[in-house]
Amino acid sequence: MKLIVLLTDFGWKDGYAGILKGVIWSIAPGTQISDLTHEIAPQDIRQGALALGRAIPYFPAGTIFLAVVDPGVGTKRRPIAARIGDLYYVAPDNGLITLPLQNAARKGQAVEVVHLIRPQFWLPVVSSVFHGRDIFAPAAAYLANGTPLAEMGERIQDPVELDFPDPIRIKHGWRGEILHIDSFGNLGTNLRGEHLQGRGQIEVHIGQQQIRGLVHAYGEGTTGQLVTLIDSSGALAISAVNSSAERALAAKLGDPVEVWFVT
Amino acid sequence: MKLIVLLTDFGWKDGYAGILKGVIWSIAPGTQISDLTHEIAPQDIRQGALALGRAIPYFPAGTIFLAVVDPGVGTKRRPIAARIGDLYYVAPDNGLITLPLQNAARKGQAVEVVHLIRPQFWLPVVSSVFHGRDIFAPAAAYLANGTPLAEMGERIQDPVELDFPDPIRIKHGWRGEILHIDSFGNLGTNLRGEHLQGRGQIEVHIGQQQIRGLVHAYGEGTTGQLVTLIDSSGALAISAVNSSAERALAAKLGDPVEVWFVT
Amino acid sequence: MKLIVLLTDFGWKDGYAGILKGVIWSIAPGTQISDLTHEIAPQDIRQGALALGRAIPYFPAGTIFLAVVDPGVGTKRRPIAARIGDLYYVAPDNGLITLPLQNAARKGQAVEVVHLIRPQFWLPVVSSVFHGRDIFAPAAAYLANGTPLAEMGERIQDPVELDFPDPIRIKHGWRGEILHIDSFGNLGTNLRGEHLQGRGQIEVHIGQQQIRGLVHAYGEGTTGQLVTLIDSSGALAISAVNSSAERALAAKLGDPVEVWFVT
Repeated sequence: MKLIVLLTDFGWKDGYAGILKGVIWSIAPGTQISDLTHEIAPQDIRQGALALGRAIPYFPAGTIFLAVVDPGVGTKRRPIAARIGDLYYVAPDNGLITLPLQNAARKGQAVEVVHLIRPQFWLPVVSSVFHGRDIFAPAAAYLANGTPLAEMGERIQDPVELDFPDPIRIKHGWRGEILHIDSFGNLGTNLRGEHLQGRGQIEVHIGQQQIRGLVHAYGEGTTGQLVTLIDSSGALAISAVNSSAERALAAKLGDPVEVWFVT
Repeated sequence: MKLIVLLTDFGWKDGYAGILKGVIWSIAPGTQISDLTHEIAPQDIRQGALALGRAIPYFPAGTIFLAVVDPGVGTKRRPIAARIGDLYYVAPDNGLITLPLQNAARKGQAVEVVHLIRPQFWLPVVSSVFHGRDIFAPAAAYLANGTPLAEMGERIQDPVELDFPDPIRIKHGWRGEILHIDSFGNLGTNLRGEHLQGRGQIEVHIGQQQIRGLVHAYGEGTTGQLVTLIDSSGALAISAVNSSAERALAAKLGDPVEVWFVT
Repeated sequence: MKLIVLLTDFGWKDGYAGILKGVIWSIAPGTQISDLTHEIAPQDIRQGALALGRAIPYFPAGTIFLAVVDPGVGTKRRPIAARIGDLYYVAPDNGLITLPLQNAARKGQAVEVVHLIRPQFWLPVVSSVFHGRDIFAPAAAYLANGTPLAEMGERIQDPVELDFPDPIRIKHGWRGEILHIDSFGNLGTNLRGEHLQGRGQIEVHIGQQQIRGLVHAYGEGTTGQLVTLIDSSGALAISAVNSSAERALAAKLGDPVEVWFVT
C-alpha cells in the first residue's frame, strides 16, 4: 500500500487539507494518507522546506510527499513532481524540496524532476487559486496508483533551490542564526554538531546572554535555565529547561547566534 | 473499504475527536477515518455547514460524513442520518447538512433522512452531553458496516435548513457579505462568479476601500496589495497579496461587501 | 490490523508527530495510526494522563497507545511499555499511564510493565533529546508487529504514578478543584457524580459565584448562563450555556470548587 504524506500551510480550520485527501481517495482509493503538518506559517516556503527536510530520513522507501506552500499559485511558477533517491515529491517549484535535492547531490542519489503539464493528470476543472486540490493532489494519487513519473510531465533539470544561510567563521568561533523555532520554544540554529567538534569548551552568545557548555538533555538544569544542546536534527539549539527559550529571549527567526571556542 | 470523514468543533486538545475514532473502530474495525476539520469555532453551525459544503464535491461516492457541531446536545434537537445523492451524513438536525440538501433539491438527487431513535445503534450508555461519542459515531460505524439507513431510524421529511443570506440587487450592482474567512485571511463572500458574468469592469467596495477589477491569482500584485478574485469555491473573495485581508481590513464575518458595475 | 494511537505535547507545527508515524511505518508497514491529541500543553504530564484516561474506555482491545509527554527525556527516567487489561502503552515512566494503572488495580486486571532497555528495538542511532522518535515509536511498531512485551525489556513492578488530588469532605458537602478545562471552556472537576448521589439539592460555589442545581444538557439555560452538570467523563463540571465558563470566571486549573448540600 502506498503512503502519501501531506505538508501544507493550510491550517486545519477550513478543511482545505481534508479536501486534498478526498481528491486523492477519489483517484486512488485506499491509499494511506498521513499529515506531517498543516501549520507551516502562511506562505513560509523556507519553514516548509525545513520541516520536510527534518522528516524525510524517517519515512519508508516509496513514500510520496505532497508539499503545498504555494504563494505563487496561478502565476508562472511550475508545478513539479520528483523522485529523489527512493522517495517521491509533488510540490510547486519554489524551493520546497531544496533539502532532498541537496542531500541527493551530496550522496550521489538519482534525481528525476518533471514539470506537471499534462491535463489528463489534473482535475477536470483547474482553478488558478488552489493547485493543491486541482493539480498536486491528483498527481500524488496517480503516483500512488503506479503511474510512472515520466508519463506525468516533461523532464526538467533546473528545479528552484532555496539559499539557506551558511554560518560564518569569526575570530573566536562561528556566527550563525536561528533557523527554526519549534512549538516548545527551542531555538534551532544553522550551526551543527560538526562545527563544534573537537573544539573543547564553547560559549554561546545570543542577545545579551552567554551560555557556557553543552548539556545532553532538555531536563539538565533548573526550570527556566538557558541551556544549549545538539537537537534531534543535529543542530545547535538554545533551550530553556521545562520552559520556552523563545519567550525567555524574545527570540525570532533570523536572530544571530555566536559560538565562541573558549579553551 | 468505507471512508468516514469527521467535521467537528471539538478542537484537538482534549482528544474528543480521537474518542470518536475509538468508538468507530470498536464497531467497524479497519474503517478508514479522515479528519476534515475539528477547528470549527465552538457551536458555529453555520461555519460547519459551509466547511462541509466546500468539501463534499471532492469525496468519492459512499463517503460517510460525521459532522458534530452540536450546541443543542441533550435537548429536543433530533440526531439524524441521511443519504443525499451518493454521500452519507450523520449529524445533529440543526442545519449542518443544509448545503448537501440544497444541492440535492437543485440537482434532483435522491434524499433519505432518518431520525436516529433506535438504541441498538447507540453506545450502551448514552450521556446527555456527548452524543458525538454515544450516538453519532456509532451510527457512522454501523453505516460503514453496511447497515441500511432505513433500519437505523424513522424516516423524516423536514430536516432543519439554515437560511444563508442572498446578495441584494442594488443600483449599481450587488450588496453581499463576508461568509467565510479562511486561515490565510482571505474574505469569501456570498457573491459568486455568476453575479459578475458579462458585466464588464467591476469595483468592489469594502469598508473604506475600493478595489478595481479581478485578478486571477493570489500572487498577482505587490505584497500587501488588496485584490479581488474568484476563489476555489467559486465565490468572490477579497485577498491581500502574500498577506491577510482580514488583518488589513479588520474584517469580520457578516461585514457588507458591494460590487459595482462600472462600465 | 493493529491500531496505534498517539498522544503527545508536540503540537502539529513542526512535524514531530508525523515523524513518529514515519518511524512506525518503516518498521510496521500498513499499521493503522490515529491521533488522539498532540496539543497537550508542553511538558504537562498531568493533562496528558487525564486525556489518556478519558479516551481508553472507547478503544478496541489490542490498541497500542503511544504517549509522549517527556520533560525528562535523556535523564534517568525510564522508557517503558505496558500491557494493562487488553490495551498496550508505550511511554516515558513519568506517570502518563497512571489512570490505566489505577483502573487495573480497582478491577483486578492483569498488568505487565517492562523497562525498554534492549537496543535492538530502538532506532540504530538514539539521540538524548527525542526518545519519542528513537525509542518509543519503534517500540510501538514492534508491538504492532507482534513482538511479545517480555522480549522487549526487563519486567518492572514500580511504574511511577501521579498523585491526583482527592476531594475533601467539608461541613456542608465537598471541596474539590478544577482538573481539566476543555476547548469549549467547560471546567471539569475532581468531584464526580458519585459524590452528589442521593444528596438532594446542591449548590456549587466557584469564585464569587453560586450555581444552584444540576442541568442535564449544555443547552439548558440562556446564553452565557452558568450551569453545572455531570460531564461526559462522569465529572461535575461548570459550563456557560453556548459560551465559555473558563472566560466568564477567569478560571484556571487547580481553582477550588465547593459543592454544598442545601436540602
